Amino acid sequence: MKEDLMALASRAKAAARALALTDTEQKNAALTAAADALTGTAETILAENVKDLEAGRAAGLTTSLLDRLALSEERIASMADGLRQVAALPDPVGLVLEELDRPNGLHLTKRTTPIGVIAVIYEARPNVTADSAALCLKSGNAVILRGGKEAIRSNRAIAETLRSAVAGAGLNPDCIQLIGDTDRETATALMKLNGGVDLLIPRGGAGLIHSVVQNATVPVIETGAGTCHTYVDKDADLAMAVEIVYNAKTSRPSVCNACECVLVHRDIAKEFLSMAERRLAEKQVELRADETCRPLLSHAVPATQEDWGKEYNDFILAVRAVADVDEAIGHITQYGTGHSECIVTENQGTAEYFLRRIDAAAVYVNASTRFTDGCEFGLGAEIGISTQKLHARGPLGLRELTSYKYEIRGKGQVR
Amino acid sequence: MKEDLMALASRAKAAARALALTDTEQKNAALTAAADALTGTAETILAENVKDLEAGRAAGLTTSLLDRLALSEERIASMADGLRQVAALPDPVGLVLEELDRPNGLHLTKRTTPIGVIAVIYEARPNVTADSAALCLKSGNAVILRGGKEAIRSNRAIAETLRSAVAGAGLNPDCIQLIGDTDRETATALMKLNGGVDLLIPRGGAGLIHSVVQNATVPVIETGAGTCHTYVDKDADLAMAVEIVYNAKTSRPSVCNACECVLVHRDIAKEFLSMAERRLAEKQVELRADETCRPLLSHAVPATQEDWGKEYNDFILAVRAVADVDEAIGHITQYGTGHSECIVTENQGTAEYFLRRIDAAAVYVNASTRFTDGCEFGLGAEIGISTQKLHARGPLGLRELTSYKYEIRGKGQVR
Repeated sequence: MKEDLMALASRAKAAARALALTDTEQKNAALTAAADALTGTAETILAENVKDLEAGRAAGLTTSLLDRLALSEERIASMADGLRQVAALPDPVGLVLEELDRPNGLHLTKRTTPIGVIAVIYEARPNVTADSAALCLKSGNAVILRGGKEAIRSNRAIAETLRSAVAGAGLNPDCIQLIGDTDRETATALMKLNGGVDLLIPRGGAGLIHSVVQNATVPVIETGAGTCHTYVDKDADLAMAVEIVYNAKTSRPSVCNACECVLVHRDIAKEFLSMAERRLAEKQVELRADETCRPLLSHAVPATQEDWGKEYNDFILAVRAVADVDEAIGHITQYGTGHSECIVTENQGTAEYFLRRIDAAAVYVNASTRFTDGCEFGLGAEIGISTQKLHARGPLGLRELTSYKYEIRGKGQVR
Repeated sequence: MKEDLMALASRAKAAARALALTDTEQKNAALTAAADALTGTAETILAENVKDLEAGRAAGLTTSLLDRLALSEERIASMADGLRQVAALPDPVGLVLEELDRPNGLHLTKRTTPIGVIAVIYEARPNVTADSAALCLKSGNAVILRGGKEAIRSNRAIAETLRSAVAGAGLNPDCIQLIGDTDRETATALMKLNGGVDLLIPRGGAGLIHSVVQNATVPVIETGAGTCHTYVDKDADLAMAVEIVYNAKTSRPSVCNACECVLVHRDIAKEFLSMAERRLAEKQVELRADETCRPLLSHAVPATQEDWGKEYNDFILAVRAVADVDEAIGHITQYGTGHSECIVTENQGTAEYFLRRIDAAAVYVNASTRFTDGCEFGLGAEIGISTQKLHARGPLGLRELTSYKYEIRGKGQVR
């Protein structure tokens, strides 16, 4: 089975080499053609999706998993829109990052290049197929897609549509390949395909990410795990703090940039918590509070050790009082995942103190952590949020899907 | 044993947090103090080195390994100079990479940060201890050093010297830690120390690199493997080509940026090879030639399939004729390691064609591949040459030992 994967990766590599030399216009034309093709074949894709949903129901998938799996005319239109948006973004390949003349007359140009072959392992959401393919194509990379078995029929239909559209636009369709086998052995073999895969990006829950980190021998970017904190300082504008926490917790609790824990300075804990509890009650948010905060709340559950650092992905919020900003920083350093962390304060000095000391992809002063997102940061669409420190941190947009090389022009220099 | 490593890594992490906030002057003072301390304790270090050398001779180490292991007053002075050079380089931490105002009023600052805890696994050369410690310290990272057992006494003496010097300069000495255990199990445990190690850099031969890539679950940057080619085009200045090949092959054959294979356009093969053979004979370079080239040379050995892609690290050069630049590119794509590749040509169009199509960290026109080096590129000292495409490619200087974070300043924005 590994041999098949190597053959697939070799085709991907050949396609990647050609794609690296393809000009922006042709890549954009292929993306636009693929967008049109998606809406054009919506009926076929939906028919395959229905089969996946039936199999999923028979297999007893949860409602939320079935919801992630389900496609509709609207969701397909939104996938197609995503492809058009990627077409509209600037080409990240061939950009000059630096130019340098050395004393010996050598001229160095540091220029962005595609990475090569990018593998994406994901779970039940079929839109990841189209999103990942579009971002990789625009950045000149071939993509090897390995989605979950729940979505295999939908993924096959989408991948086939994309492949024939890009072939119609004159590109090698092997720049987009979906792995048909959805067993665990194939995924593990993909994680160890050194020489065939230049980068592996897992997109999914903590279990998937953990499995990739433990098993992969190819380079990986860890994404997704987000236990985000909001620290409400004694000098906070409390009304602002309430709105920030409310938004960060409730606007979309299932995502990685949602707030999971609020740390509140004990001097303002009483006032803040009574305001916050009222607002959060609108969405029936369950509060799990430490011993200091619980008496200050009407309906809080006692927090246990397991609540610190917990990613609920739900309408649940941990609440803890701290003595000062240092204790807040200490808590975040111990329990955070390096995703997004926030301080609410009107004190400039405290804000800068927090900003310097928190080690996370995104550190906020007076804004909701929900903004950690490629589009919100102005990077365009993203393939995930990196929570590691190597290569890229935070939203992975087109630029983060490139590498670089040094071009060195000489006149016979020797050393 | 893994527990000890985790405790060691926790100390490293605490030291790294403090170091991230240490200002440039204090880091430079610590580096200068460490340089002085190295020369000051040269006698002790040399005494320990003599013990390593005696043990090495008893264990039957090769002459070249013993040479790499051996220290002298001069080599210690050169280590100390290296530390002073790192002190003189600009601080890579806290630099603003980008600033951005979003339409909603959020202000984003993308700023460089240290990576955190960097582990370095290396072999017999004790100078790696001082070099790695200096580069990590200046870039605000704690370093965990794990050298080979051959050099353990020398490494301990050097690390102790560095630690007390940086402690004397007011830094936490745990930002430099040497692992005392030199067994394989400890190295493997270090490779799997997720949560404790943010980046692992192997420095050494192909065996070490392979073992790290296969075993590590922490993020790794692959370094070092270099099978570099020089393609002599039909439009080359042949005298220039001879000097470039001579330099790239013979100036230091043991290093990764040395030329291992010359590809020559068949139209000029006869003239070029007779000139090149004469020049390379000055250093008794053994030529291993394909069937086309062998009759054109006086003393060539027949090349076999194993010679293509081979890293000799010796006075041996593979020689192959090609029909055109495309065949040269094809050979390099198949057998190169993505390190440094060169074309010699006076034809601008052919040069640009080659530059665009070769996928390597450094692509040269009319210059020796020996220039792929942090100092030669103007980056200052380097911790290795990356041959992977993630994070950094080519020389890993101070800037490449940083990550970044987004600082986001708002006025209560919610999404």
